Amino acid sequence: MKNPSAFGTVMVFNDPMTEEKSLPPSLEETAVRAQGLYMYDTKKLPGNAWFAFSVVFNSTVHGHCTHNIIGADIAYQKAKGLPVVGGTGDFFMARGIATVQDDVAEGITYFRLLMDTKLYECYV
Amino acid sequence: MKNPSAFGTVMVFNDPMTEEKSLPPSLEETAVRAQGLYMYDTKKLPGNAWFAFSVVFNSTVHGHCTHNIIGADIAYQKAKGLPVVGGTGDFFMARGIATVQDDVAEGITYFRLLMDTKLYECYV
Amino acid sequence: MKNPSAFGTVMVFNDPMTEEKSLPPSLEETAVRAQGLYMYDTKKLPGNAWFAFSVVFNSTVHGHCTHNIIGADIAYQKAKGLPVVGGTGDFFMARGIATVQDDVAEGITYFRLLMDTKLYECYV
Repeated sequence: MKNPSAFGTVMVFNDPMTEEKSLPPSLEETAVRAQGLYMYDTKKLPGNAWFAFSVVFNSTVHGHCTHNIIGADIAYQKAKGLPVVGGTGDFFMARGIATVQDDVAEGITYFRLLMDTKLYECYV
Repeated sequence: MKNPSAFGTVMVFNDPMTEEKSLPPSLEETAVRAQGLYMYDTKKLPGNAWFAFSVVFNSTVHGHCTHNIIGADIAYQKAKGLPVVGGTGDFFMARGIATVQDDVAEGITYFRLLMDTKLYECYV
Repeated sequence: MKNPSAFGTVMVFNDPMTEEKSLPPSLEETAVRAQGLYMYDTKKLPGNAWFAFSVVFNSTVHGHCTHNIIGADIAYQKAKGLPVVGGTGDFFMARGIATVQDDVAEGITYFRLLMDTKLYECYV
């Protein structure tokens, strides 16, 4: 590959999220999904990434609601903090930190993240 | 088209915004513009989109000011909430929700949105 | 060039930041870096741009921390305000305004910005 670190390529994703390590019931019909973009911004691997995405709920408990996360995923940090900058529905006006850890990573072609989100401001 | 849902294509826009359904006086010289990006992140149509943009004012009333919106536009919701995560000028430190509805949509090649923005935090 | 204003091209960057006008010690090993994306969204030059990026610290004073900035860089404004919408570490829950001025600009191929960031909400 001419650009092994994928520097500068904007990746669009829409991936299922589940509790703990359970597999999603199906890739299409998952109650919670992460939808947005990321891109790698370092030329050496493992590289830093930059994320901007929404966590979209379509569940019986939370209804339709979202919260939105943007920030840098720094390769040399074990647990990376990404700020939650806003939300809708049950996450109206939410702010906080989503802490992200690599769970499984196979180069830049596949990875799975563990995410733990704490909200410090919310109105519900 | 090989990718009919345009999954993963990042669209950059700079479009006029007007009150109600009035047409802009001209495409170039509009007092309020929406500037940013969106992309589609589902493969079936009508698809979800993900937006990140600024509403830029250059008006006699508000002067030069902006507010910034990011979030998921979920296809199955009639009115979609997108969080306002910050602003400048008259919208200094603004937070709130922009509620977006399809006004006119012709597939993925043309659409017009109705947007109603409520700010719950601001300093002015 | 077919698209002289680079309208719609998403540029990914990871650039050193230094105090005042000092040069970085090296391009790779700088304590503070700006990492994210911008794109131009006007067809005439000098054009407006739209930024979304993180300021990433890896310093002995602040440790590993970030703050995140998104907003419109309006060409006709001398000093452009870009909202700080969140942060991590020493910038936990930060909000404010980063004021950006052109320092050096050579068309769209090279530019250097002066940035002055004021935080109005933070918890540290």
